[in-house]
Amino acid sequence: MMEIGTFQILESDPSSAARVGRLQTAHGVVDTPNFMPVGTRASVKSVAPDRLIEIGAQMVLGNTYHLHLRPGSELIRDLGGLHRFMNWSGPILTDSGGYQVFSLSKLRKIEENGVHFRSHIDGQALFLGPDESMQIQGNLGSDVVMVFDECAPYPCTWEYAADSMRRSLRWARRCRDVRGKLLRSGQLLFGIVQGGLYADLREESARGLVDLGLDGYAIGGLSVGEPISELYRGLEASVAHLPEERPRYSMGSGTPLQIVESVARGIDLFDCVLPTRLARNGSAFTGRGVVSIKAATNRALEDPIECGCGCYACREFSRAYIRHLINVNEILGFVLLSIHNLYYYLRLMSQIRFAIEGGTFETFRQEMGKTYVDRTERARLEPVE
Amino acid sequence: MMEIGTFQILESDPSSAARVGRLQTAHGVVDTPNFMPVGTRASVKSVAPDRLIEIGAQMVLGNTYHLHLRPGSELIRDLGGLHRFMNWSGPILTDSGGYQVFSLSKLRKIEENGVHFRSHIDGQALFLGPDESMQIQGNLGSDVVMVFDECAPYPCTWEYAADSMRRSLRWARRCRDVRGKLLRSGQLLFGIVQGGLYADLREESARGLVDLGLDGYAIGGLSVGEPISELYRGLEASVAHLPEERPRYSMGSGTPLQIVESVARGIDLFDCVLPTRLARNGSAFTGRGVVSIKAATNRALEDPIECGCGCYACREFSRAYIRHLINVNEILGFVLLSIHNLYYYLRLMSQIRFAIEGGTFETFRQEMGKTYVDRTERARLEPVE
Repeated sequence: MMEIGTFQILESDPSSAARVGRLQTAHGVVDTPNFMPVGTRASVKSVAPDRLIEIGAQMVLGNTYHLHLRPGSELIRDLGGLHRFMNWSGPILTDSGGYQVFSLSKLRKIEENGVHFRSHIDGQALFLGPDESMQIQGNLGSDVVMVFDECAPYPCTWEYAADSMRRSLRWARRCRDVRGKLLRSGQLLFGIVQGGLYADLREESARGLVDLGLDGYAIGGLSVGEPISELYRGLEASVAHLPEERPRYSMGSGTPLQIVESVARGIDLFDCVLPTRLARNGSAFTGRGVVSIKAATNRALEDPIECGCGCYACREFSRAYIRHLINVNEILGFVLLSIHNLYYYLRLMSQIRFAIEGGTFETFRQEMGKTYVDRTERARLEPVE
Repeated sequence: MMEIGTFQILESDPSSAARVGRLQTAHGVVDTPNFMPVGTRASVKSVAPDRLIEIGAQMVLGNTYHLHLRPGSELIRDLGGLHRFMNWSGPILTDSGGYQVFSLSKLRKIEENGVHFRSHIDGQALFLGPDESMQIQGNLGSDVVMVFDECAPYPCTWEYAADSMRRSLRWARRCRDVRGKLLRSGQLLFGIVQGGLYADLREESARGLVDLGLDGYAIGGLSVGEPISELYRGLEASVAHLPEERPRYSMGSGTPLQIVESVARGIDLFDCVLPTRLARNGSAFTGRGVVSIKAATNRALEDPIECGCGCYACREFSRAYIRHLINVNEILGFVLLSIHNLYYYLRLMSQIRFAIEGGTFETFRQEMGKTYVDRTERARLEPVE
């Protein structure tokens, strides 16, 4: 095993900033670029861990905010940590809770040490700041811990974005300073570049974080409603000032096309609720874009969701059957679509890695741009699953 | 393979009417006594077919009424039948639709040829009688087809029960007469003993059905709100007039204790929504009775639902985790509890067969009566899952 935190770059794409790498965590290696299924409340919605392994998931994401509220991080710590609690022995990344504090909770009041807010569940008064977030993530025992930050809204003024980013930078420093005390050994700490859509602020944020010498760097504050071209500009303005040799993570992104385009801009890790959220909406990812399984054309269709797909749903069930399940609101319909959609995403990541390794990433990117129709075209994702 | 419809009795219990047998269907053998998980709308709620196989299910039940409404039996026929549609290659029994017509639908009008009613989903005017039920079940292609009948309400007068039972008997005759035309070869046809709680009517019903020479006999009209002692008396009054050499099926029953007691009275087949319904309610079956996983005592409990249980939920997850999932309404919680509860029922059936074969059924029955506390004590089961 490599030293925990080692990030090896195995291959770089000559035509873009894409690269293939391996990140060593305390719970195993993650091949990058990779996608993390979202397990907000210690469960990837409707998909049991044995299915996740079969799907090919290597790393999952848990949400600090949700787990802090229920069941509480001390309980999870007492039960041996999040891996044992949710029966996932592979790597786990936890977000910092900041994003949900700002997007979900009511009556926020920001102070220098953190944020007063009320639980979106029962209105309980709570406080979360860098110390609390590190304590909670230490309790959870995730492999990758995110610094506590504010995700500024879109649109916002330069002044708001600057103030918010600089406060987040101070919070990041605080997280780094207390990690020795509050995190367990082997937990990696990633910074989060903020700064809205202002390139100068993104640069200041990235440089400030890099000065802290963190294990990896995420790009936050995007996919919050901005046009897709702005998302890519925000990515570029951030990545430009991040070190080659550390992993980069685009938070909460995105559609398959956005992922390919982000990989081309040097991103190594992704998470997104789209695969499971669209499943609950009766939609499936295919090579040609998102299709609605509820469509009347599927009524009597014996074909699988996608011909040639190797997932359990496609190997064993027809579109007609899955459409029926969705129409009558049977849980198995959501289970099967979630399995397929996650499989689609993880196969996409494996195809991306293969293309980069084989020197065909540029062709892959162009082909995907032609065949995959992004009907959703949405950079905006609602905050809760 | 034995001839389809063959029912071999391998062992009979000397101390009761319990027996171990094998029923040959077109899709394989069913070891009896056995329990059929309920797949109302072509899915055993939240449990995928590969899990059902792992759980040890041999035969599942589908609902004619629900499948007739959505997606329609012609569609299922055109897609190769219910087995292929739901990807279950083992035996399937379908009920006749009668029970749901009388319990779910509105504005019923009974005629000699069947029942006019309105769909409980959209109010559509529909008609179901013996011909329609046989046609639909022929389309579904189930291995065991049930005759169309009326399940009389509880309580009801002798006169109502007599009229209803005699009409059901005429309907049963009609089902037998049209089976050659409307069912596929290899589909077995079971009669349903009715007659309320009146022993004389039960006898008349059973004798009338036996005269028709059907492949098996169900006991209907029980578990509809009567006291548990009346349920057993109704079973006894029916079984007494059924042939030893044909399989007997107690419809919609029951709790684990009821199943053991019914086996002792000569019953071979069971179906019940309790395992999956209680799962959705956060409850689990254990050797000591039903327990609520939501209970505060499970908050930090690392133990599985039941120590020693071999199901996926118990092998891999703690009570604390499953309690958390149920508390936050995560689908995986219902999936895991459904898996456990069905496993509990199927293991119970296997223990029952083993006990009968080993000559220890009486001991097993007494032990179970002592250790298993039936907190539910309910003969009444609501009609819909």
